[in-house]
Amino acid sequence: MSEDRFHFEIQAECPVTRARAGLLHTAHGIVETPVFMPVGTQATVKGLAPRDLEGELDARILLANTYHLYLRPGADLIRSLGGLHRFMSWPRAILTDSGGYQVFSLSGLRKITDHGVIFQSHLNGDTHTFTPESTVDLQLALGSDILMALDECPEYPVSHEYARTSMERTVRWARAAYAHFEKRPGDTRGRHALFPIVQGSMFTDLRQQCAAELLELDARGYAVGGLSVGEPRPLSLEMVEATEPVLLRDRPRYAMGVGMPDELPEYVARGIDMMDCVLPSRNARNGCLFTSQGAVRIKQARFRGDPGPVDPACQCYTCKSFSRAYLRHLFQAGEILYAALATLHNVRRYLDIMREIRHAILSGRFPEYLQTVRRAPVEIE
Amino acid sequence: MSEDRFHFEIQAECPVTRARAGLLHTAHGIVETPVFMPVGTQATVKGLAPRDLEGELDARILLANTYHLYLRPGADLIRSLGGLHRFMSWPRAILTDSGGYQVFSLSGLRKITDHGVIFQSHLNGDTHTFTPESTVDLQLALGSDILMALDECPEYPVSHEYARTSMERTVRWARAAYAHFEKRPGDTRGRHALFPIVQGSMFTDLRQQCAAELLELDARGYAVGGLSVGEPRPLSLEMVEATEPVLLRDRPRYAMGVGMPDELPEYVARGIDMMDCVLPSRNARNGCLFTSQGAVRIKQARFRGDPGPVDPACQCYTCKSFSRAYLRHLFQAGEILYAALATLHNVRRYLDIMREIRHAILSGRFPEYLQTVRRAPVEIE
Repeated sequence: MSEDRFHFEIQAECPVTRARAGLLHTAHGIVETPVFMPVGTQATVKGLAPRDLEGELDARILLANTYHLYLRPGADLIRSLGGLHRFMSWPRAILTDSGGYQVFSLSGLRKITDHGVIFQSHLNGDTHTFTPESTVDLQLALGSDILMALDECPEYPVSHEYARTSMERTVRWARAAYAHFEKRPGDTRGRHALFPIVQGSMFTDLRQQCAAELLELDARGYAVGGLSVGEPRPLSLEMVEATEPVLLRDRPRYAMGVGMPDELPEYVARGIDMMDCVLPSRNARNGCLFTSQGAVRIKQARFRGDPGPVDPACQCYTCKSFSRAYLRHLFQAGEILYAALATLHNVRRYLDIMREIRHAILSGRFPEYLQTVRRAPVEIE
Repeated sequence: MSEDRFHFEIQAECPVTRARAGLLHTAHGIVETPVFMPVGTQATVKGLAPRDLEGELDARILLANTYHLYLRPGADLIRSLGGLHRFMSWPRAILTDSGGYQVFSLSGLRKITDHGVIFQSHLNGDTHTFTPESTVDLQLALGSDILMALDECPEYPVSHEYARTSMERTVRWARAAYAHFEKRPGDTRGRHALFPIVQGSMFTDLRQQCAAELLELDARGYAVGGLSVGEPRPLSLEMVEATEPVLLRDRPRYAMGVGMPDELPEYVARGIDMMDCVLPSRNARNGCLFTSQGAVRIKQARFRGDPGPVDPACQCYTCKSFSRAYLRHLFQAGEILYAALATLHNVRRYLDIMREIRHAILSGRFPEYLQTVRRAPVEIE
């Protein structure tokens, strides 16, 4: 008999909002939710060593991109080296996306059929095919704890007609992915979970129809995809609001590719348990540091001689050891250490926000927390 | 009375070669010699955080470049922020060069006079002047433990005539720097040491004359400069060999800008106590990893699926945690983490070599150690 190592446990629910706090049990440890997953696109969170992610940052789960790892160095290579956890020296949980988002945003797309998608590598133009079945196999080769079903991620805006056609294809692909996943031998279902993705562009009727159809799969968790594709931010939240009541209470919900620091509690308030985004790491590298007092644009001249830390309230190595003046110097000089220190801080900030949110839910004070966040400045004075 | 916190203590001398092991006491801790100083050009060793340099690598002294820090962010700014140690969060010893080498190699050089050198910034073309006095003041503003006197570093090759003229100017500049340094108020001489630099291009007579004249300064230590400027490697060693007998036994000798891993014991065998070089960090970033079995060119296809560490004999975080295959993947993907992990390893390798050398001298086995190194392969099989 295979042991089921994947399950979700709700610890507390906010009586006012849809927020919940829980524990996601995986074959690579327990993830406290709500959780933000740092993005390790190419089997590395840009600028951070796994020992810092595990130690100082205490991240419990990372996201990695199937599309990128499939193209380079290849899923078979990673499997032959013991899987992605060993390859990148990360002993905790990993969620991999299906590759769909990257195919639709990065590659020279060739053709979408009901069988899958034919695309050109953004690295060298080579032609490849992703099918619902092949992306399950790729993610299992990587050894991912949470797999995502292949979806079509439409750009914004699209017509209701296109959105419906696309959504229906995403549902058919999810069914095909599930059928394939369930036929896999051994302990696959005990060690791995496959999440389907709710699509439907910015149409609430399509979102709800998609969610309802995906419910039939009885999946371990559900994602809301197709957000952060250029739509106004209130629309993204509206789509989550429309979808959430259709989803089962006892399954984790994952909002893909969100969001800004002030948006994290908004998604949680709408019933989201999991999020990921490149913003903390990408903005760090671009000179935007998130703090409890708002964002710091480190290249600004006013920080040239500033002896204070990026965020006096932050306990990260960067804030405990270095001044804004030093970070500005490293940024201006194009030094690698800037990217490392800035990313460490920004990811810490995101994870600290999630710990605050979780603590607020567990202690019954999430509505007050949300009000405080909504009044806070976005940029430092 | 000011306490003299800078002194050099010889612990052991090799009975066969000129190698010595000692302790260099500074206001920021004790440096075990022979020592290799990682280069922190712009107040950071590229790719490494100070906590790793201090913790895992146990580096005791870093080098920083006065020229770069003078141009950006400025020595006055660093002084106003508490000095370079605090600025870069490095509590141990720092040696700063005088800026002479960079002026002669990087900048749009305008004019050399007996008073100093007028040059153009490589960053924006602005005109600046370095004098023997001003570079002492700059280095004191930085709070450096070991200052270098301004020198002229001629390219290779130059005529004997030019080399003599240039060397004589370096001697006059060193005298001016000393006169200025000794007039500085307070505890300057107790907390800081100023080293003059022996020049003379590749002419042994000029090297010896220069060293003899600089001896009159009764400096705390002496550097051999003007090496690694394009000359054949045996010539560099020959210049050190010619200079060493002129220098005082009880003062540390610093060979500037050397060398490859296999050259480190050669310099030590010729009486050198201190070295610095960008090679471990620069080569790391370029894909060349130094190991106990020779250099690994990580981009080579043979490492694509190699599950072993960069160097099985190395105890660094990189070697304990990651495969050659993973490092090759990071290198190919242009990931920041590659530079961090590769630099950590290469600097560790250099510091481990220095610890091996020191241990061999202290235990009376340095000649055997040198023979072993001379028989070792430079590239892995």
